[in-house]
Amino acid sequence: MNKDFVSLSEGSGGKEMNDLIKSFTFRGRGRWKNCYDDSATLDIGDSKLLVFTTDSFVINPIFFPGGDIGHVSVCGTINDLAVMGATPLGLSLGIVLEEGFSKRDLKKIINSINKISKDTGIPIVTGDTKVMEKGKVDKIVINVSGVGIAKKGGLLDKPLEIGDRIIISGGIGEHAIALLSKRFDYKTSIITDSKPLVEEISSVRHLIKAAKDPTRGGIAATLNDISQKHNLGMLIDEESIPAKKEVRIVSEMLGINLYELACEGRFICISSKDNACLVENTLKKFNSDAKIIGTVTDDNKVVIDTQLGRRILPEPRGLIVPRIC
Amino acid sequence: MNKDFVSLSEGSGGKEMNDLIKSFTFRGRGRWKNCYDDSATLDIGDSKLLVFTTDSFVINPIFFPGGDIGHVSVCGTINDLAVMGATPLGLSLGIVLEEGFSKRDLKKIINSINKISKDTGIPIVTGDTKVMEKGKVDKIVINVSGVGIAKKGGLLDKPLEIGDRIIISGGIGEHAIALLSKRFDYKTSIITDSKPLVEEISSVRHLIKAAKDPTRGGIAATLNDISQKHNLGMLIDEESIPAKKEVRIVSEMLGINLYELACEGRFICISSKDNACLVENTLKKFNSDAKIIGTVTDDNKVVIDTQLGRRILPEPRGLIVPRIC
Repeated sequence: MNKDFVSLSEGSGGKEMNDLIKSFTFRGRGRWKNCYDDSATLDIGDSKLLVFTTDSFVINPIFFPGGDIGHVSVCGTINDLAVMGATPLGLSLGIVLEEGFSKRDLKKIINSINKISKDTGIPIVTGDTKVMEKGKVDKIVINVSGVGIAKKGGLLDKPLEIGDRIIISGGIGEHAIALLSKRFDYKTSIITDSKPLVEEISSVRHLIKAAKDPTRGGIAATLNDISQKHNLGMLIDEESIPAKKEVRIVSEMLGINLYELACEGRFICISSKDNACLVENTLKKFNSDAKIIGTVTDDNKVVIDTQLGRRILPEPRGLIVPRIC
Repeated sequence: MNKDFVSLSEGSGGKEMNDLIKSFTFRGRGRWKNCYDDSATLDIGDSKLLVFTTDSFVINPIFFPGGDIGHVSVCGTINDLAVMGATPLGLSLGIVLEEGFSKRDLKKIINSINKISKDTGIPIVTGDTKVMEKGKVDKIVINVSGVGIAKKGGLLDKPLEIGDRIIISGGIGEHAIALLSKRFDYKTSIITDSKPLVEEISSVRHLIKAAKDPTRGGIAATLNDISQKHNLGMLIDEESIPAKKEVRIVSEMLGINLYELACEGRFICISSKDNACLVENTLKKFNSDAKIIGTVTDDNKVVIDTQLGRRILPEPRGLIVPRIC
């Protein structure tokens, strides 16, 4: 890899991307906080925090089992607000189109966006459309930014303690497997897990300390992110990690680490040991695969307990799976 | 033009783009207002309005006399907040890169963004980076969204009256001519006018009723936008429109309508007849070419008064100049 030029792996949500982002060194955040989290936050008085986030989507293919680029774009940004503990207020929509893009496909994507907006009551309030010459962009790129409000003290950004439990809201990897089925042309019954997480997170918000959605880089990236941020370790019980049999088989077949597969409608959260079962049971009402998967430890590493012994689950590196979200 | 597929002209800021955007028909904006303006607004209590906007930038070339895509992206979004009468609070930065993009060029762009952020005190608070395979996107696409706060009653969205004056903050078309000089390889001393307008607008905010920056589609698009929104006409005095001689010559040489050339550091504002000279003189402190250029009328059209008589200045149509902002 030539270090003078941007590589695909720098867009894949792993260590290389984190290094690239940190090299940007934006000086001065003013009174904003959580700038390296899913959303940045600003105290705007009156016991309120403004919460602000952005995400660009370059998915290939743009239509896949159970969803499309519009669906994932809107859910992704709503979820980045929701995992912070915020109530989303409104979204922006920036669309870059390739000249010659089918208006029927555009309409389908817009309808997807409209449906989620209507179902969640979170409106698209501002937008921008650009068109690039044929061959200058691959079909469509979508940016969705979002603003929300959180109560002061209500952020899911509380200190963690050794012994806290780690809970996942459902089976992993379905988004990646559904999307890759179109790219690699295999048959599967798996559809994307893409969905807005507002209701699920609201149902346990008062019981949990932190939350994060495992998108690019999968749970491997997310667990390492939380671990690094809090300077604590995690011990994950491999057998408890929920994943559909077909997801396991296809990920093995493709040679892709199951734990690095992106989800678009799951979140990992941390609660005290005492609250963990209540969190698990509450989340099971939305998805029967919700599960306690591990414990916060004091050793600064994410360790996975397997039938063959314990091993470290590292932060993903290299080209995980490009253009999956 | 085949109506089933997206055309370049639908990304050029003219009538076709307005029609495309309106065809999206997003249902339900909740309590948000001004959704078709430069920024959307939401009453968040405590006599405050949240102001939110987004813009994607697909400029070609990415470096040009006096600026680069980073400079224009950040200024563009800051200005979309400022023309609404808002105080910008923070910006998001979504970057989509082509695999193999030069890190030296990326650093230059990031430095440009950092400089404006530092100069204006408006921080970049949240971001996202994606990489597309070589050939799947032309170098770099940037989305900048922005949030700001305005006082209730402080929006530059007041009703206009017949007889109000129209003022422009400086000479037109410099951004377009500077950028096109690289694309068409001609020599010019013109550099982009790209700059943040926060200070200039603040200096006259209490004196004006409405403001808008003439980016894509130039003053032809902006004057028609204001006219349509308020259901009023405008009479513009051609001789009073400020433009550098070289801008006039090059636009004639290229066969591009001077009034459709994009600016990135100018705004048009409307004040009462009584305040107009004070607005003009205040703005002259920032740019000696600031000028009263016309009057609000009752005839629903933008009319330009030339040496050869009066003619309508229509909303731009067709392919104005692609990928200029």
